[in-house]
Amino acid sequence: MNRTNPIGFFDSGIGGLTVVKAVTRIMPNENIVYFGDTARVPYGSKSNETVVEYSLQAANFLLRKNIKLLIVACNTASSVALKELRKFLTVPVIGMIEPGAKMALQESRKGIVGVIGTRATINNKAYTYELKKINPKVKVYEQACPLFVPLAEEGWLDHKVTSMIAKEYLGGLNEKKIDSLILGCTHYPILSDVIQKVVGKNVKLIDSGTPAARLVEDYLNGRQLRNLSVHHGQSEFYVSDVPTKFREVAERFLGKKITHLHKVELDELTNE
Amino acid sequence: MNRTNPIGFFDSGIGGLTVVKAVTRIMPNENIVYFGDTARVPYGSKSNETVVEYSLQAANFLLRKNIKLLIVACNTASSVALKELRKFLTVPVIGMIEPGAKMALQESRKGIVGVIGTRATINNKAYTYELKKINPKVKVYEQACPLFVPLAEEGWLDHKVTSMIAKEYLGGLNEKKIDSLILGCTHYPILSDVIQKVVGKNVKLIDSGTPAARLVEDYLNGRQLRNLSVHHGQSEFYVSDVPTKFREVAERFLGKKITHLHKVELDELTNE
Repeated sequence: MNRTNPIGFFDSGIGGLTVVKAVTRIMPNENIVYFGDTARVPYGSKSNETVVEYSLQAANFLLRKNIKLLIVACNTASSVALKELRKFLTVPVIGMIEPGAKMALQESRKGIVGVIGTRATINNKAYTYELKKINPKVKVYEQACPLFVPLAEEGWLDHKVTSMIAKEYLGGLNEKKIDSLILGCTHYPILSDVIQKVVGKNVKLIDSGTPAARLVEDYLNGRQLRNLSVHHGQSEFYVSDVPTKFREVAERFLGKKITHLHKVELDELTNE
Repeated sequence: MNRTNPIGFFDSGIGGLTVVKAVTRIMPNENIVYFGDTARVPYGSKSNETVVEYSLQAANFLLRKNIKLLIVACNTASSVALKELRKFLTVPVIGMIEPGAKMALQESRKGIVGVIGTRATINNKAYTYELKKINPKVKVYEQACPLFVPLAEEGWLDHKVTSMIAKEYLGGLNEKKIDSLILGCTHYPILSDVIQKVVGKNVKLIDSGTPAARLVEDYLNGRQLRNLSVHHGQSEFYVSDVPTKFREVAERFLGKKITHLHKVELDELTNE
């Protein structure tokens, strides 16, 4: 494996761009290749079987781009498909769950952690499992928030309705006196202002993007796989569909302009 | 073509079951075969190109079930893919747009019609085109309501938030003094109570399901293709994914129990 090979990312759509943002902030010289499965988004309301199938297709597509490491930049795919991906892939695979769980435990004073995510992520209880593996005494309360993804994609970030929906979803967690809250979906950092207001400023919000980026940095450093270039890396973005307003929404998540955007035909994913 | 052959329906997911409900109400002796593309739902936020591709795959799947007629029970697919479907298919194809537009004009006293739908349906202006083709003097105002589908699927039918979102989306149409409103997405009849409250009782809500069912009845009668059986027809339901709570939500849309439910592998759709 070569140091200059890119880091691969995939997500069901554009949410994973918040993870790309975290990685390029601490490792700007790494080359990046991203795949967003916009033709089949969302994953969070689909069955485990389908999410595993799509994840393996996405990973195989990225392997053909000679990635040196795969980041599953989607909490749903991380909670459902990580084991299968690690079984079939020859490159290291880093998901969102483990780094997010670790950081939540570091930040929690009382050991009472909330987790929010898509229905699939919450049904699979991947965060509860990971948190209890590290600290069996931790108390974990999970809550699915299915309307947060469409609200984030609509850009209703400081809308009264978003605040009301957040109150409805998060009221139960407030009662449990959580002191850290894992944003268990890569769309949710976009809504962090409203979420913070609803849970109060004493609850630490945990976005897996930053700790995942740190984990990748450690991993690459430990194996002499960091890119040593002094220049900014190249970023390539592949998507399975380019709907209206895609670029606008994607750039809101990434926090900068997207220059190299390519469309992948579904045949290319399904017929290996 | 045989009278006993089934009527085929497809939709991006479960919304089309409201159309099945309308058809079986007036023609209970017809056999039905339904395909819902739940592995790739929704279509309404995707590009025209992708919606056409998925629609042709769904139609080809149903042709292999020997359907005598195809109902495109999805407004997005109807507004984007009808022409392509009619070009490639050997059976008659009935979409949602034409029957909905006709009924709206029958019900409108002032000739001021509102249309709501997904972003893809509204961007394509298929209803405006169809309405003006029938009556060039009609005034049409279209409005995309992207959050209505997730709200309907969540079952937040009489929630305060749903009412607030409806007020936000429909306020502009109220100002235009519309007197009929086309529910241009098969999910929306589920939200008709809240929509009716927001637009007022003088605005007639138009659900394409019932006029589409009448059009199918006329078509089959005119060609001696009605099933003459005195017994209730068989209904078969195929989906590309069976996520958690699928049956519960689907039965809410269909209004009765689903007995014959089968999962279709995506390979079966993509590799003809």
